[in-house]
Amino acid sequence: MQDDIRDYRIPEEPYYRAVGEEVELYEAAYAVRMPMMLKGPTGCGKTRFVEYMAWKLDRPLITVACNEDMTASDLVGRYLLDADGTRWQDGPLTLAARHGAICYLDEVVEARQDTVVVIHPLTDNRRVLPLEKKGELVKAHADFQLVISYNPGYQSLMKDLKQSTKQRFGALDFGYPEAEVEREIVTHETGVDGDTAGKLVSVAERARNLKGHGLDEGISTRMLVHAGSLIQRGVPPLAACRMALVRPLTDDPDMRDALDAAVTTFF
Amino acid sequence: MQDDIRDYRIPEEPYYRAVGEEVELYEAAYAVRMPMMLKGPTGCGKTRFVEYMAWKLDRPLITVACNEDMTASDLVGRYLLDADGTRWQDGPLTLAARHGAICYLDEVVEARQDTVVVIHPLTDNRRVLPLEKKGELVKAHADFQLVISYNPGYQSLMKDLKQSTKQRFGALDFGYPEAEVEREIVTHETGVDGDTAGKLVSVAERARNLKGHGLDEGISTRMLVHAGSLIQRGVPPLAACRMALVRPLTDDPDMRDALDAAVTTFF
Amino acid sequence: MQDDIRDYRIPEEPYYRAVGEEVELYEAAYAVRMPMMLKGPTGCGKTRFVEYMAWKLDRPLITVACNEDMTASDLVGRYLLDADGTRWQDGPLTLAARHGAICYLDEVVEARQDTVVVIHPLTDNRRVLPLEKKGELVKAHADFQLVISYNPGYQSLMKDLKQSTKQRFGALDFGYPEAEVEREIVTHETGVDGDTAGKLVSVAERARNLKGHGLDEGISTRMLVHAGSLIQRGVPPLAACRMALVRPLTDDPDMRDALDAAVTTFF
Amino acid sequence: MQDDIRDYRIPEEPYYRAVGEEVELYEAAYAVRMPMMLKGPTGCGKTRFVEYMAWKLDRPLITVACNEDMTASDLVGRYLLDADGTRWQDGPLTLAARHGAICYLDEVVEARQDTVVVIHPLTDNRRVLPLEKKGELVKAHADFQLVISYNPGYQSLMKDLKQSTKQRFGALDFGYPEAEVEREIVTHETGVDGDTAGKLVSVAERARNLKGHGLDEGISTRMLVHAGSLIQRGVPPLAACRMALVRPLTDDPDMRDALDAAVTTFF
Amino acid sequence: MQDDIRDYRIPEEPYYRAVGEEVELYEAAYAVRMPMMLKGPTGCGKTRFVEYMAWKLDRPLITVACNEDMTASDLVGRYLLDADGTRWQDGPLTLAARHGAICYLDEVVEARQDTVVVIHPLTDNRRVLPLEKKGELVKAHADFQLVISYNPGYQSLMKDLKQSTKQRFGALDFGYPEAEVEREIVTHETGVDGDTAGKLVSVAERARNLKGHGLDEGISTRMLVHAGSLIQRGVPPLAACRMALVRPLTDDPDMRDALDAAVTTFF
Amino acid sequence: MQDDIRDYRIPEEPYYRAVGEEVELYEAAYAVRMPMMLKGPTGCGKTRFVEYMAWKLDRPLITVACNEDMTASDLVGRYLLDADGTRWQDGPLTLAARHGAICYLDEVVEARQDTVVVIHPLTDNRRVLPLEKKGELVKAHADFQLVISYNPGYQSLMKDLKQSTKQRFGALDFGYPEAEVEREIVTHETGVDGDTAGKLVSVAERARNLKGHGLDEGISTRMLVHAGSLIQRGVPPLAACRMALVRPLTDDPDMRDALDAAVTTFF
Repeated sequence: MQDDIRDYRIPEEPYYRAVGEEVELYEAAYAVRMPMMLKGPTGCGKTRFVEYMAWKLDRPLITVACNEDMTASDLVGRYLLDADGTRWQDGPLTLAARHGAICYLDEVVEARQDTVVVIHPLTDNRRVLPLEKKGELVKAHADFQLVISYNPGYQSLMKDLKQSTKQRFGALDFGYPEAEVEREIVTHETGVDGDTAGKLVSVAERARNLKGHGLDEGISTRMLVHAGSLIQRGVPPLAACRMALVRPLTDDPDMRDALDAAVTTFF
Repeated sequence: MQDDIRDYRIPEEPYYRAVGEEVELYEAAYAVRMPMMLKGPTGCGKTRFVEYMAWKLDRPLITVACNEDMTASDLVGRYLLDADGTRWQDGPLTLAARHGAICYLDEVVEARQDTVVVIHPLTDNRRVLPLEKKGELVKAHADFQLVISYNPGYQSLMKDLKQSTKQRFGALDFGYPEAEVEREIVTHETGVDGDTAGKLVSVAERARNLKGHGLDEGISTRMLVHAGSLIQRGVPPLAACRMALVRPLTDDPDMRDALDAAVTTFF
Repeated sequence: MQDDIRDYRIPEEPYYRAVGEEVELYEAAYAVRMPMMLKGPTGCGKTRFVEYMAWKLDRPLITVACNEDMTASDLVGRYLLDADGTRWQDGPLTLAARHGAICYLDEVVEARQDTVVVIHPLTDNRRVLPLEKKGELVKAHADFQLVISYNPGYQSLMKDLKQSTKQRFGALDFGYPEAEVEREIVTHETGVDGDTAGKLVSVAERARNLKGHGLDEGISTRMLVHAGSLIQRGVPPLAACRMALVRPLTDDPDMRDALDAAVTTFF
Repeated sequence: MQDDIRDYRIPEEPYYRAVGEEVELYEAAYAVRMPMMLKGPTGCGKTRFVEYMAWKLDRPLITVACNEDMTASDLVGRYLLDADGTRWQDGPLTLAARHGAICYLDEVVEARQDTVVVIHPLTDNRRVLPLEKKGELVKAHADFQLVISYNPGYQSLMKDLKQSTKQRFGALDFGYPEAEVEREIVTHETGVDGDTAGKLVSVAERARNLKGHGLDEGISTRMLVHAGSLIQRGVPPLAACRMALVRPLTDDPDMRDALDAAVTTFF
Repeated sequence: MQDDIRDYRIPEEPYYRAVGEEVELYEAAYAVRMPMMLKGPTGCGKTRFVEYMAWKLDRPLITVACNEDMTASDLVGRYLLDADGTRWQDGPLTLAARHGAICYLDEVVEARQDTVVVIHPLTDNRRVLPLEKKGELVKAHADFQLVISYNPGYQSLMKDLKQSTKQRFGALDFGYPEAEVEREIVTHETGVDGDTAGKLVSVAERARNLKGHGLDEGISTRMLVHAGSLIQRGVPPLAACRMALVRPLTDDPDMRDALDAAVTTFF
Repeated sequence: MQDDIRDYRIPEEPYYRAVGEEVELYEAAYAVRMPMMLKGPTGCGKTRFVEYMAWKLDRPLITVACNEDMTASDLVGRYLLDADGTRWQDGPLTLAARHGAICYLDEVVEARQDTVVVIHPLTDNRRVLPLEKKGELVKAHADFQLVISYNPGYQSLMKDLKQSTKQRFGALDFGYPEAEVEREIVTHETGVDGDTAGKLVSVAERARNLKGHGLDEGISTRMLVHAGSLIQRGVPPLAACRMALVRPLTDDPDMRDALDAAVTTFF
């Protein structure tokens, strides 16, 4: 059935390895229904964390990958034409607000600043969502919470959240996990042995030091999991690292050589 | 039912702590139905003030969060396709004009300058709203009033109201409340004791002095309420302030350290 | 009923205080159905003048507040979807042309230059309006006249009327009225005594001298009427002037102080 | 009835005062159905000339005022939704091509260069118009001809016709008429005596010398007709010239004084 | 009937005067169904050549005049609303692919680079056209071929074909014909005697030498045919050349004088 | 039938000449359903490789030629209006995700960065595709895989994939094949003898050295196949090379001469 909120439940506990107090702080924020902003680089686990918290708090999770073409209607809903005339279709934000889900706006800086404005009435003490096209004022379900993610590395003059939006959220920082933790994650997710996982983490650390010195981003935990999966599948480590870590990261020949050399150092 | 103006009544007296003559001045402006412009930084209480006045004057309040994609039709209304052909749907501005509500255009500078022009005939002595698409000339209800909010800190060459719009409004300035008043507000809204509230206000004052020296905006009263709620919930004050005051405000490492230090000074 | 041209009649004589020969000149222009352009700053009475002339000439008046999003269809009309298929809906310009109304395009420079082009066939000796979407050629009613307003202070490289448009119009200049006349207007519109009205006019004259020296526009007659209404309502003159004259005009602290000082001088 | 081509016939001989061989040359061009381009400043009589030629050649005339928002569909036609589904509505260009009218695209540089491309198949030896949306290939009626007007003074880098368009047309230059001829036109169109008409022409000549020295365009014949009409109506010549010649032309105070002085010299 | 492919057959042999091996080379390219790109200045006969080849190869020819507003749907097709719901309407490209026509995209650089991308699957060994909106994969008819035209003189940074498009085509260069050949063409197309045709060609050669020295393009063969037609019609040669060769080409007074002088030299 | 996934099966083994380990590496990546990015210049065989792998892995292949006008709806699907109201039409990405096809987004950098964001939930461990307009959460079929192609030579500041997209993919580099391999390919695809094929490859190598020295791209294998086909058809080698290799590559007269000379050297 359409709009069945049960589709959005997380059926099983997602694997999440906490790296600090983030789980407890999030629980306190949820307790007062404070809107939350998760900050950090790509592939460091923000999305997995929200899935884990939704599971832990036993709430449905509605995720929206934001993009610049997204209009307010894509969030809020629109009229569709039916055999019997028009029928209102709730957008993901409205669906979450009505049914008490957690609504997660992924990469919110991609959305047009001004589309983001529609979340304002949901993020102050009013907790309402006016559906102007429908002439309805939705009062948010008591369990509803809004979460956004945000990569500070991408913020620019053109694309940043307005202060009047930011100040409506509490914020948690995310980064790449410590080496030990990351090795544990790679082992768990791919099945490679701890030694191989450790070498992959070492390659990543080398690359992360190059961020801002020719690389826009470091190697993420997600990429290490890719490389580990290939190795576990029988691909030689050098080929696996080239394919999963180096080639996706950069087209610059010098950076490639430097990263390939780093791979050779460890494998 | 759709468009039920009763949905827009404020059922209970909102908590509002007056900081000057603003309540009396607003009442006089409403008495002569002068359109009003509320100026001030984000999170200082402009929206709460309008809610309070709507309650006090016993008028419905229709709030529109303005954004750049908003067209004149979003304010005024449009035809919808129905089983029996097209049906006119009043927009929020028309709804307010017909039923004598207060219409509050929040962050009006976000709207395209030229969309704003549709409010002109409602803000001079004509007090009419031509629905050009429908071929109807709506005469505003005697109780109708238009209110807009405006953050002077955001005004820029691209986004400012035109003089021909500004001159149609009376204006009231809003700022952060005095320390004593703000402490009272934080205590009232979060339940923390006066001492904790006072410390939070002191942190805010420190940060507000940095506005223009590395910070785009100061810490707002709304953020203090966030921090107080977390503390009241059992989160340690340092973690609560990082999460609710510092992290949302800035990504700059030096500013963060300065703000974290300010928090440590008081807690 | 929709499109009822009688809605657009001016029922009572509007208050208009002539400041020169403008009434006679306009009557001559109307007698030869010359399209007219009213030039002058915001709030000086151009709109009121057109209402007065429409009343005097006993013609309906259809006013369009121009904006950048306005398309040719918004002026001319469009097909609407009905239970029985599409139905043509005349736009305000077509309505006026058919029924012999005066059509007033307010702030015409706001409209896209190229949308303005649709008025060309109505403003030369052809006096026709081709409805291209409908395949109809509307011949203007003998009583039809087109009037536009225009604020020379806003003209810029991006937004100005084309010569091929301007040359189709006769033009009348409007400015702020002389002190005596303006005092009479403020007294008439607000009910304050002549002394108070005179002081308000003196404040305005001070501010108008600052135009171009930190102020984009001077204080308009409309703003004086706002201030007078508040004073008449019992608001102290200093507060009334701050709210109705100074705060709407500028956000610049120095300009505010200068204007506040001017107010204190007279009250 | 919709789309009735008879609406587009010119019922009576329009007044046109030939200034050279333009009538004979146009007849020859029409005889070989050469597409024509009329070049010249605003208000010099290009539109009147086309009306005259359409009357003389006994062809219907379909005029399109081009603008930047005009799409290919506005020229060519579109599907409309009807009670029985969609119905094709010919645009003005298609209407003219089917019925052998003269199609006049006024101020063609205003149209997007690339919309203009749809006229190409009608302007070479194919003389067809593909209605891509309808899947029909319209073969132009043997009497069809395309005419465009073009003001060289407006051409710019952004707005000019492409060579591949220009080269499809023969071209005729138009300018302001000689003094004697223009006096005759003003007399004929307004009824003023020859002396007054001569003075108006002298004012225009003075202003035309200022083109490029502070004026974008000179005073056109159309403006002289405006002034003459007002004088004939009893408006004093000085006021009539200010209103119909000077005020519409410029907002520059120095230019106004110069032009007002020129008026005083002659009247 | 709509979409009748027979409408697109060339009924009679078009006059085409080959200037080199282009007919044989095109036949070889068609034999291996290689997509073709015809390069050359405006009015030199590219369109006529394609018509001739379509006639010679006995294929229907579907021509699309490309423009910047053209969307992928304009090429590929779209759903139309019908009495019984939606009905798919093939676009010209789909029509050609289904029925084995030659599809000729005229002035393809005018189209948005990215709209052009839809032709890619038709121009490699797949020869398919995915109708994404319809969920159909059209396999091109064995006789289908794609031809584009391209004026290298217009290519700019903003408007050029991508290498990944260009490399899918074989290319043939076109230029103005040799003097003898061009004289033959003008004589054939207009009926003027060889001497007059020769003089017209001489004028053209003079003008073509000015290309890049004040002229954007030279005088094309098409323009010579225009001038010849007027002369044949009885227009004096000097007037005919001014109207058909000089006035359409340039607005620059000096260039006009130079070209007028060139005309006088020969006639 | 619409949407029949069987249409997208590759019926016969496509000719693909492996140049390295790419087949084995791709198989390992597919085994763990890692999303893949194929990098390399135009015409080097990326599309053919994906077809070959789809055939080898016995999966349907749905190819999307990306372009800037492509909206998220073009990938994901949309509602169509039907006799019985609206009907959902899966887009190619949804179709592939539901039925376990390989979805190949060709030239993905052409798509708007933000449209690309819709693939994110399909490329991490969630492997879901939220159809927001329909209110459905599609779980990807176990056999589904996403592949994108990417030409590093085109990447620019405006058009590049975001790191948060790139890091979701493993990557394989493609280039032009070694001379021996390329000769084998040309022979196989065109039927020319090995000597002729070898000469064509030599011409290509010469041109590839000019990349960055006046040529934007080298001669691709696809172009050599074009030239070989013409030669096999009887076109003299010099003419075939001019038409298939040189003319499509450049409009620069000096580069043309240099390339024509290179052709003459070998033939």
